[in-house]
Amino acid sequence: MVEFQTHHLDSVFHALSDPTRRAMLHRLAGGDHSVSDLATPFNMSLAGASKHIRVLEGAGLVRRHVQGRTHMCQLEAARLADAQEWLRTYERFWTSRLDDLETLLREEERASPSTHEKTTKKLPKP
Amino acid sequence: MVEFQTHHLDSVFHALSDPTRRAMLHRLAGGDHSVSDLATPFNMSLAGASKHIRVLEGAGLVRRHVQGRTHMCQLEAARLADAQEWLRTYERFWTSRLDDLETLLREEERASPSTHEKTTKKLPKP
Repeated sequence: MVEFQTHHLDSVFHALSDPTRRAMLHRLAGGDHSVSDLATPFNMSLAGASKHIRVLEGAGLVRRHVQGRTHMCQLEAARLADAQEWLRTYERFWTSRLDDLETLLREEERASPSTHEKTTKKLPKP
Repeated sequence: MVEFQTHHLDSVFHALSDPTRRAMLHRLAGGDHSVSDLATPFNMSLAGASKHIRVLEGAGLVRRHVQGRTHMCQLEAARLADAQEWLRTYERFWTSRLDDLETLLREEERASPSTHEKTTKKLPKP
């Protein structure tokens, strides 16, 4: 099984643990924005917004580039895909537990076919 | 679009931002374990392990139950599914950006059909 104890997952999940940073990513998913654009809906100082953006940059989720005198931010989606891949491991596990449950139910049905009959019997047509 | 600024995502992503806690979930995916079982591979005190487990419990990722005198921990996968759902929104965005790129390339092909011809022309049979 793949080992996911990598440093970048620490920083990605840490970046995503804050609602302001998630909202910033949400806006950047619609297109690039300047730092002051990103600060506006939160009634936040530029310094406060920059702090959050630095966390997102550190996690590789945002890339900052200069356009004239404006610092523009761009979403970098690849690291989100890594986080999703990590979670997918558990989705598979979860699905397999559901399969186990189904197997268990089928075994119980075989052990008591009368109960099975009751639950699967078709209703008479009206 | 669904708003994901929910408190439980904060705690889930925070819980996942630590490699020890991710490794604990990884072990619990294989079955229930006691607190001391979970502490062992990290050469960690019971108090240290308990602290991490409390974070996982707080995020709704682990459920603790008492068996005799042992505290057993069990993985709760549903909240991981919520986190994956949040990430899936960005997967869709990312895929649509790839589609945009494809559209752009097709438009370029239409604008310069000679280049298109060169790249799609079949090689003569040997």
